[in-house]
Amino acid sequence: MADNGVLPVDKLTISDTVEEAEFSQRVLIRSILGRPDGGAGLAGKTLRVGGWVKKGREQGKGSFAFLELNDGSCPANLQLIIYSDVAPLGQFTPTGTCLHVEGVLQMPPADKQGKQSIELKVSKVLDIGAADPAKYPLPKTRLTLEFLRDYVHLRPRTNTISSIARIRNALAYATHTFFQKHGFLYVHTPIITTSDCEGAGEMFQVTTLINDSEKLEKELIKNPPPSQQDVDTARAAVKEKGEIVAKLKSDKAGKPAITAAVAELTKAKENLSKVEERFNQKPGLPKKDGKIDYIQDFFARQAFLTVSGQLQVETYACALSSVYTFGPTFRAEHSHTSRHLAEFWMVEPELAFADIEDDMKCAEAYVRFLCQWLLDNCLDDMEFMAEKFDKNAIQRLKMVASTNFVRLSYTDAVTILEEAVSKGHKFENEVKWGIDLASEHEKYLTETKFESPVIVYNYPKGIKAFYMKVNPDNKTVAAMDVLVPKVGELIGGSQREENYEVIKERILENGLPLEPYEWYLDLRRYGTVKHSGFGLGFERMILFATGIDNIRDVIPFPRFPGRADL
Amino acid sequence: MADNGVLPVDKLTISDTVEEAEFSQRVLIRSILGRPDGGAGLAGKTLRVGGWVKKGREQGKGSFAFLELNDGSCPANLQLIIYSDVAPLGQFTPTGTCLHVEGVLQMPPADKQGKQSIELKVSKVLDIGAADPAKYPLPKTRLTLEFLRDYVHLRPRTNTISSIARIRNALAYATHTFFQKHGFLYVHTPIITTSDCEGAGEMFQVTTLINDSEKLEKELIKNPPPSQQDVDTARAAVKEKGEIVAKLKSDKAGKPAITAAVAELTKAKENLSKVEERFNQKPGLPKKDGKIDYIQDFFARQAFLTVSGQLQVETYACALSSVYTFGPTFRAEHSHTSRHLAEFWMVEPELAFADIEDDMKCAEAYVRFLCQWLLDNCLDDMEFMAEKFDKNAIQRLKMVASTNFVRLSYTDAVTILEEAVSKGHKFENEVKWGIDLASEHEKYLTETKFESPVIVYNYPKGIKAFYMKVNPDNKTVAAMDVLVPKVGELIGGSQREENYEVIKERILENGLPLEPYEWYLDLRRYGTVKHSGFGLGFERMILFATGIDNIRDVIPFPRFPGRADL
Repeated sequence: MADNGVLPVDKLTISDTVEEAEFSQRVLIRSILGRPDGGAGLAGKTLRVGGWVKKGREQGKGSFAFLELNDGSCPANLQLIIYSDVAPLGQFTPTGTCLHVEGVLQMPPADKQGKQSIELKVSKVLDIGAADPAKYPLPKTRLTLEFLRDYVHLRPRTNTISSIARIRNALAYATHTFFQKHGFLYVHTPIITTSDCEGAGEMFQVTTLINDSEKLEKELIKNPPPSQQDVDTARAAVKEKGEIVAKLKSDKAGKPAITAAVAELTKAKENLSKVEERFNQKPGLPKKDGKIDYIQDFFARQAFLTVSGQLQVETYACALSSVYTFGPTFRAEHSHTSRHLAEFWMVEPELAFADIEDDMKCAEAYVRFLCQWLLDNCLDDMEFMAEKFDKNAIQRLKMVASTNFVRLSYTDAVTILEEAVSKGHKFENEVKWGIDLASEHEKYLTETKFESPVIVYNYPKGIKAFYMKVNPDNKTVAAMDVLVPKVGELIGGSQREENYEVIKERILENGLPLEPYEWYLDLRRYGTVKHSGFGLGFERMILFATGIDNIRDVIPFPRFPGRADL
Repeated sequence: MADNGVLPVDKLTISDTVEEAEFSQRVLIRSILGRPDGGAGLAGKTLRVGGWVKKGREQGKGSFAFLELNDGSCPANLQLIIYSDVAPLGQFTPTGTCLHVEGVLQMPPADKQGKQSIELKVSKVLDIGAADPAKYPLPKTRLTLEFLRDYVHLRPRTNTISSIARIRNALAYATHTFFQKHGFLYVHTPIITTSDCEGAGEMFQVTTLINDSEKLEKELIKNPPPSQQDVDTARAAVKEKGEIVAKLKSDKAGKPAITAAVAELTKAKENLSKVEERFNQKPGLPKKDGKIDYIQDFFARQAFLTVSGQLQVETYACALSSVYTFGPTFRAEHSHTSRHLAEFWMVEPELAFADIEDDMKCAEAYVRFLCQWLLDNCLDDMEFMAEKFDKNAIQRLKMVASTNFVRLSYTDAVTILEEAVSKGHKFENEVKWGIDLASEHEKYLTETKFESPVIVYNYPKGIKAFYMKVNPDNKTVAAMDVLVPKVGELIGGSQREENYEVIKERILENGLPLEPYEWYLDLRRYGTVKHSGFGLGFERMILFATGIDNIRDVIPFPRFPGRADL
């Protein structure tokens, strides 16, 4: 909503009608209050609205009540006025009450027009969902974000979480719009993966083995397995029936007698194999040669939740040239920080016929597009965040949207940091060529030194992943990180090593086995192409935009060690 | 590409310039061939393109070669002509070769203009990624979709899989565009869930317990646990040190002596607790009271992969009114059919202040929007699918985009099916009121009886989920399924039961425990709202659109029993 002030009627430039939402029996509050005139031009219209009461108060000795109604379509509330002759007022005022009402839009009294440009006088209550204030779990005041984490199912009803939800939604759609506009294809990389690229230690395992083994355990309790004696008996039966057959044959008995004896033998053998199978069933996970027998798992091998879609999306980049993936990724790290989640969303574009320069250009354009999108589409929510959480939030978006990012080689970055140290700046982590930049270093560059987004590129080979393109100096790789004020590293990317011999060498250098990467090597064996890509942690982008401090508050259902509600 | 024919120059309505892709060192082939004139108006321009050779052949006694180049931006190939004075030709012609070249666009000779409206005469080869035809894994001919399933990393290089990728991309963006246009917010529901709503039997478990227990097992082999005797020794030490302290105290010994003895005792106690802890460590999954001790799992409880985001997205609908989720969902079903995947994508909108009528309206509008979108944005790919796989594919899209869906109550649907039976139509499954409609029944309604999309609504209560709104007849629920030709059920949805007492009753009726649903009941306890929603299986929509028969071919990385490549 650009403006809440009341425009004179002759300044209105849009038509004074308002439509109900196409699949919902009400007018969205945004279509009223989001008009340039704040809805004033709609005075006199009869319409239906629905939403939840944020605040309600009876006035005029109980003759009427004011209700602030919010339907999630925008941060602003529509003021309802309801008289006691329509319905008893007490049921409407509690916070959290759901209302679906019909009424007439009217201008508030002249002395109230600064606050409200329009209000709805309720003529009919279509539906009410009560919220008993004695039981409603959310307190009216001192509602901290931390408290709300215990109520993930109710917290979207708060102003803060609903603003974050709208900002998150806007950033997601902006992401798709940016890449589609530039001809990238959205590719759904797999969530369940059998490519273990960064070590199983930090990956969640996906399995049906535990469930199967528990079923078996229950079954074995219900139907105890046969004893060794049962097995011996079954084995003896086979031996006995076999001897009978042999005897009949050596006696040259008639065919019917032999056939009957063979049938008996077959039955005994079948019984033995059944008894043996059940005898060998052991409670617990199935084992073979002392190891868990993953042949019996759902995918006939060990499977994990993906930590990144990059390697898989490369298969599409090396065929369809410009692609991206946007989906959930997972880390089973036991970190309890405000910056880590076990489940989070990543945006990962991958571009063929593109080198590290193109990659940096794309990353910069994308981030600036996201910032401009929020300024264009979510200014009301951004104003709320700036007021409540971070007064610099809007300024930061404007700065990033309009600034050319500083480009800095890693070597130059280290020189700058060393200069800072020599001038007395204290870092906790030692600065020297070869280190991975720590968060404090990144923040120094983007917040103190340049006060601008910075892209650092050409990192030492030793601290980066095997798939990054080795530069001609053979010391650095064509990797790049985008650093922004407030969160530090927002994007990490690189040109990919497309030379078959070099990447094979790099896999081995990193102590990794070749076999699981054969498919990845195929991309270099056949029709290899220069290509580049990067990853943006979606929640980091939301932290950057909103100024919120804890990542658990910018994803609807946070997952972290010890918690996965709903 | 609307038209491949050559337009006279005076008919051109677009400017005759063409830009390189912004983050990639080439012009997209689509920007050349996708013009109304098929690129003819660009003759004389010098530009760079990149892509993979689909077909190459030397001609003129090896003096030049024709190469069909595809870059994934559209199904059409750009024809390159390269002369042997530029470079030896043999390296360019193998299928799968990657080329990045510079050249001049030129009109082909007059007698070839029917086939090609423009070709590129290569002047410089910037880069080449060879593809040794003796080793290239994809055969040139008889490339079946089934064969390709063993090469998920290379199959996007085929015409069919790349067309499907573009159609899938278009449907995903159309989905976001439709819901955003109507004011729905995109909500990321969780992938890892602890709400087990449809029975753990069909769910994948997410765990770190197996990895932890394997680590422990290795550790126990490396450092064998203490024996009972070690424990006894440690215990005896505690006893002994305790007695020394007691003796010193009763002897009224000096403070320093007592302090020293107490320190010894503390050390002995610490040692005992360490020894006991290690003594109690058993290989295998951690157990407590005979059950697996999930307190020790990552989330401190049993966790699964989601089967649907519906229940969780309702928490946002009951706060922000119109929302949708679009993400991966999972079923650990051992079904090997052409219609089931273990990992697939679902679109699930949820609308507040909306009943079953609104729900049907929304579902119909959404499906028709998707069909029209493909006709408007993917006609060239649809033409390919129609030619190769399903001659009715385009006709079907047009029909659905322009047809009002038939609405039919379940009761009327059963009457129609019974009439068909009485007229001699044979169904494998018995028809009578109360059954769940089988696929053959659905297909009869949509393909035979109406030859149109059909929405069946108001299903018997007994065959539907607990959360569906009970109708006043108390026999049916306000559920609806959208049936379309070719795939049958495309969408399933319902109005949700918003009455607290009724839904509580329904949970118990279904033999489910209340405790895991308390959060879901809270949505009805506090500010409950009439709401509705549905789910569309995204791969089903792609099967419907493309006419492809097997669902494993319309998702980039199919997961099913025994298989999860990459």
